Amino acid sequence: MTIEINATHDPARRSWIESANTPDTDFPIQNLPFALFRTGDHVRGGVALGDRIVDLAALLETGLLTGTAAEAAQAAAGRTLAPLLACAPTAVSALRAELSELFREGGRGDRAALEGVLVPMASAELLMPLKPTAFTDFCTSIDHIRRMAQGAAPLAAMALPVAYNGRASSVVASGAPIVRPNGQFAAAPGSSDIRFGPEPMLDFELEFGVWLRDGNALGVPIGMAGAEAALFGCCLVNDWSARGIQFFESILGPHLGKSFATTISPWIVTMEALAPFRVAARGRGEGEPEVSAHLHDPADRSHGGIDIELTAELAGQRIVRTNLKELYWTLA
Amino acid sequence: MTIEINATHDPARRSWIESANTPDTDFPIQNLPFALFRTGDHVRGGVALGDRIVDLAALLETGLLTGTAAEAAQAAAGRTLAPLLACAPTAVSALRAELSELFREGGRGDRAALEGVLVPMASAELLMPLKPTAFTDFCTSIDHIRRMAQGAAPLAAMALPVAYNGRASSVVASGAPIVRPNGQFAAAPGSSDIRFGPEPMLDFELEFGVWLRDGNALGVPIGMAGAEAALFGCCLVNDWSARGIQFFESILGPHLGKSFATTISPWIVTMEALAPFRVAARGRGEGEPEVSAHLHDPADRSHGGIDIELTAELAGQRIVRTNLKELYWTLA
Repeated sequence: MTIEINATHDPARRSWIESANTPDTDFPIQNLPFALFRTGDHVRGGVALGDRIVDLAALLETGLLTGTAAEAAQAAAGRTLAPLLACAPTAVSALRAELSELFREGGRGDRAALEGVLVPMASAELLMPLKPTAFTDFCTSIDHIRRMAQGAAPLAAMALPVAYNGRASSVVASGAPIVRPNGQFAAAPGSSDIRFGPEPMLDFELEFGVWLRDGNALGVPIGMAGAEAALFGCCLVNDWSARGIQFFESILGPHLGKSFATTISPWIVTMEALAPFRVAARGRGEGEPEVSAHLHDPADRSHGGIDIELTAELAGQRIVRTNLKELYWTLA
Repeated sequence: MTIEINATHDPARRSWIESANTPDTDFPIQNLPFALFRTGDHVRGGVALGDRIVDLAALLETGLLTGTAAEAAQAAAGRTLAPLLACAPTAVSALRAELSELFREGGRGDRAALEGVLVPMASAELLMPLKPTAFTDFCTSIDHIRRMAQGAAPLAAMALPVAYNGRASSVVASGAPIVRPNGQFAAAPGSSDIRFGPEPMLDFELEFGVWLRDGNALGVPIGMAGAEAALFGCCLVNDWSARGIQFFESILGPHLGKSFATTISPWIVTMEALAPFRVAARGRGEGEPEVSAHLHDPADRSHGGIDIELTAELAGQRIVRTNLKELYWTLA
């Protein structure tokens, strides 16, 4: 399944919310990501536009949304976005089309009527959009693996996206405090002097996360042809890592060193919003095996990549700069 | 916390349900484990006694249970046992005491009034007792690790119970069909000829599972002194393993090779039922580091072990025989 480019992606489209038109905004009218937010005690779903949040529960009350678009908004109006992810993709797409129409310059949205459904982002608290039931951490960067292995990547890393199950209960939204964990670690690399105490080598990895729609039944795989349709949207991930604990414990892979916290961005950018950024999947070079038949899909090879630049900063200093299209394995 | 021996543990106590008194029953009146079961479309919690299940919803209707015992039965009367695990331990203990009294020979239970709450086990389907939100697989047998390592255990395995996060969504109750997974594996050990197809080396491990009560808040550890109180009860586990897939994929530990299914026994044996089997935790021998201070608790060292013989059979042939008290790490 390839998501088609439509009017919501038109780069010329502007919003009557002025802050959504500035060149440096993360939230132009072409994006329209979802989040769960709170003002006072009131929790509900919203969509970002410039420095505002469109309050979907309030928008529903205006009666301006109808049909499947209203159904999707209803699914996002409660205390979790889980029902939204379970919605029919066509309904979520219809809601996007309606929002784009209501809030675009020259659209049928009446500014006076709609001002009341806008919440200043600065006055809202962004929450975990839903409680994840599982969380799998894939290592899909062959460059990262080669750097760690100081040369040749293991065959398995070129044959499949190696992964481990993370701890879903420790996934938190950006801004949540991170507690430096206590644990056991070697006093020096390779030393048998094992200490217990606060982790001495705390760091984080820049990762890219995907929220899945409803899962598959146990024992019934989703083939490559259907994999793209299982993706709802994406988020940024900071994979907090206690390296001292991790290096010492790793007999069965990472565990306590990765289980104390994983931060995600509260905004879920839909796969539809990313349609204009789709590019060919990374090819295979000399000495690299072809993608195995069960992971090979012509549509995925031609459109499976995503051209998005990602950077990470620490205390204002840029420490990572990469692009999603460099990943060895596609999201599908 | 050490659970005290009480009247429910009295080895001389017999039930008026004759099948609960046979020497080979798994379900004497001293056990009283919980399960979720179905007859027709009706799902609810029950307690095993001989070849019968005490239907807790039906028992509640008789009005014979009162106070906190009735509260615990109510928590087990719905379509999941999750509320039961969240009950106050004193309430679950009160229910056990009441059940033992009602169904014991010479107790205050009126056989004629209670026959109606008994369901023949043969006519019931046992279900997953609740949907686990997480599942961690600990390797707590130092003997297993030494055998795998062909000699000395890694220092980490002697310093902490090494573990990985399993896939909670693939945990199924005994009797559920297991689908042999497809995956990638080496044609022969060490070969670079990688095949995709049905797993050629399917096996299972005999493990012992623990159901936890409500968890801790993120970043707030449970100390050893409070760990025992976090345990609700236990079950048997068969950890299905696709060895071909596992051996090939293991860069970040086990993943797909362990994620296709994990079978548990549907019965949850409470920690209270195990009280008479508590023994000293396994000690540390020559060349083995002492238990680290943060994992050391005098009560746990003196009562942390459990003396239960475990066996596994395959097609009628016994292939494993061990005892829980041999574990290097206690449940706490």
